[in-house]
Amino acid sequence: MFSSASSCLSSRGRVIKWFWDSAEEGYRTYHRDEYDEDKNPNGVINLGTSENKLCFDLLSRRLTQSDMLRVEPPLLQYPDWRGHLFLREEVAKFLSYYCKSPAPLKAENVVVLNGCASIFSALATVLCEVGEAFLIPTPYYGAITQHIYLYGNVRLAYVYLDSEVTGQDTRPFQLTVEKLETALQGAESEGVKVKGLILINPQNPLGDIYSPGELQEFLGFAKRHLLHVILDEIYMLSVFQESLEFRSVLSLERLPDPQRTHVLWGMSKDFGMSGLRFGTLYTENQDVATAVASLCRCHGLSGLVQYQVSKLLQDRDWINRVYLPENLARLKAAHTYVSEELRALGVPFLNRGAGFFIWVDLRKYLRKATFEEETLLWRRFLDNKVLLSFGKAFECKEPGWFRVVFSDRPQRLRLGMQRVRQVLESNPK
Amino acid sequence: MFSSASSCLSSRGRVIKWFWDSAEEGYRTYHRDEYDEDKNPNGVINLGTSENKLCFDLLSRRLTQSDMLRVEPPLLQYPDWRGHLFLREEVAKFLSYYCKSPAPLKAENVVVLNGCASIFSALATVLCEVGEAFLIPTPYYGAITQHIYLYGNVRLAYVYLDSEVTGQDTRPFQLTVEKLETALQGAESEGVKVKGLILINPQNPLGDIYSPGELQEFLGFAKRHLLHVILDEIYMLSVFQESLEFRSVLSLERLPDPQRTHVLWGMSKDFGMSGLRFGTLYTENQDVATAVASLCRCHGLSGLVQYQVSKLLQDRDWINRVYLPENLARLKAAHTYVSEELRALGVPFLNRGAGFFIWVDLRKYLRKATFEEETLLWRRFLDNKVLLSFGKAFECKEPGWFRVVFSDRPQRLRLGMQRVRQVLESNPK
Repeated sequence: MFSSASSCLSSRGRVIKWFWDSAEEGYRTYHRDEYDEDKNPNGVINLGTSENKLCFDLLSRRLTQSDMLRVEPPLLQYPDWRGHLFLREEVAKFLSYYCKSPAPLKAENVVVLNGCASIFSALATVLCEVGEAFLIPTPYYGAITQHIYLYGNVRLAYVYLDSEVTGQDTRPFQLTVEKLETALQGAESEGVKVKGLILINPQNPLGDIYSPGELQEFLGFAKRHLLHVILDEIYMLSVFQESLEFRSVLSLERLPDPQRTHVLWGMSKDFGMSGLRFGTLYTENQDVATAVASLCRCHGLSGLVQYQVSKLLQDRDWINRVYLPENLARLKAAHTYVSEELRALGVPFLNRGAGFFIWVDLRKYLRKATFEEETLLWRRFLDNKVLLSFGKAFECKEPGWFRVVFSDRPQRLRLGMQRVRQVLESNPK
Repeated sequence: MFSSASSCLSSRGRVIKWFWDSAEEGYRTYHRDEYDEDKNPNGVINLGTSENKLCFDLLSRRLTQSDMLRVEPPLLQYPDWRGHLFLREEVAKFLSYYCKSPAPLKAENVVVLNGCASIFSALATVLCEVGEAFLIPTPYYGAITQHIYLYGNVRLAYVYLDSEVTGQDTRPFQLTVEKLETALQGAESEGVKVKGLILINPQNPLGDIYSPGELQEFLGFAKRHLLHVILDEIYMLSVFQESLEFRSVLSLERLPDPQRTHVLWGMSKDFGMSGLRFGTLYTENQDVATAVASLCRCHGLSGLVQYQVSKLLQDRDWINRVYLPENLARLKAAHTYVSEELRALGVPFLNRGAGFFIWVDLRKYLRKATFEEETLLWRRFLDNKVLLSFGKAFECKEPGWFRVVFSDRPQRLRLGMQRVRQVLESNPK
């Protein structure tokens, strides 16, 4: 498994490197041969990375305004490792407003880090001993596996969901308390100590939104078992279907166990800036906040960026009148386009109204229901110069599901979907 | 040791929080009552944190120039986790030039992270198993203890140096291969597996510079024992005594073991911007670089900052004609001022020409040679509104040494030294 070239690394180092090598295969191919309309029109189109590339015009206009470039002594000096107070205050106001919290949220409960990967890493280390686990329903955003394992040595205990619809009020891959209970018992019977539950809401890759009733049930389950709940709400403002109402856990009148409820948000998704590296933890538990902050020397972000983020978050006018309406309209148009393409192809998919992706059922294109077949199909897409994400990367238990990211510019999206169509139409059904 | 309020934390979380609580006492006092010439003239003056506050005027002028605010799509998207190529190329050129490397350094050997704390954390995790150790000569920059322990569970094996001068060619706290050998044997006889050696050059808190001959000896020792060497050269451009020549390890004609030699640098010290969060690792070992980069999802810095840093690093004209001459002149003037104050007080100190600090011998002000007495003296300084760092924080084995940071603006420095003088003159010698 490990070559002798790695002999300078510890076994941990080799595991870390191996983790990376495995995860990066598709992205490396993409980066070697990236599509460019002019310079490399036969390059790979990336419908695999969940990034919002639709609003660069709006963002670059706002980010180059004169209020963005401010340099003051405290911004260049050692920061408060929880984040500058002026930023934490803006984050608290921002979340109070957009999450519709019943009472104003507090700056003291905010910790600012360089992205949500860091928050997962820090929370895992702070809440768990080595080898302990968090429950997570599958399919889920697979990078979390690395975030909590590479530093924290914390594992995931899967709550396997499937696509079968069992009754009138159910939906594919539906999470229930019963399934949580079963998974928890299963993990414990294998001797795995479970310390928490990770919920992604809106869900990645399903695009599902948990109702307030569901949220309360899951939180109640966690409280009964003294589990922490990590709520990843990184897509909370990317709900583009007007009929849907997203309810943040911070909007609930009463949290069953506020000391064990920890909320994540950032600007990577909702503001289309994965490269900005800004994430925030909201927790009423001051011990957790302090312990996470004590790891923040490794997760700090530039004072200059903290200033810019605070300016953006407080510009309610730009967010509400310019950015959000336009972003949601563009997301919706892109979602509509890909949905119609999939319908024309006769491909089933989950028709949801949040996130940047569609969870697509390509099971009928596999010759056998195996993950080897799923990988073969994925490679055929890649050979035809379109990168998708296969279900195995999300620990989906049914081979043949793919995540198609639609938040790219129309021209690239059209070309990407053409390439998807070519593969599917040449494939034996 | 741990209160029940921390019951939501794991034992690791409690250790992390405790580490923080202990380290932060002085800084918390300072932050609660920070000196401000107008608003809080009786507040605490901080001569404890090693920051360069002398060149904010030059930095703010440069950082607000129009070339600094550029927003392009790749800067906002998921980065290459090693750092954007344009930045790594600039780092390689910059280090080649300022370290006087015999051959051009390569961008592929550069990994960019949000500060050197992150590099220590990642290197420890990648190079060591849990519980293994790095050798480090004491006194040393104490924060490294946390950097390598909190995530990596890696320990330090101390090479205790003392102030005694044993011969004509020796200096206080001088490191020798003999002392390295003894410490290595000592650690191994206690069952501690040593994986590497950390050298800080220019040294913090001593201000010493290792000669090329010494460097070669230490590297030779490491090679004989198959130890990695982590060279922290974060103060490499802060050598303000013209007669001194600093030689980076990257300037050596031949490295004894290049695959196990890893160099750290950043902008926190030499460019007075701890709040910018930029650090870089240079290593020829591609396995190490790849493994560190795979942890970089937790250590990334904003694409916007990467752009700014690349602009600064390539502005050789500004660096050579404006920033460096002025910065070094100001450092020298501040060093001269504090040295003269100490001489006037009859206080011995190491008179060096690099870094932001003077290592001061206050042993005669302790009633007994104990660390309790050292802490009492430190508290008397703090009560008199001046924060210093005591030797115990650097694992100095002799109680009574203090680090006085002089890289602050003249008015604050004068007031700080007045307060130091008041304490010492009222102290029973």
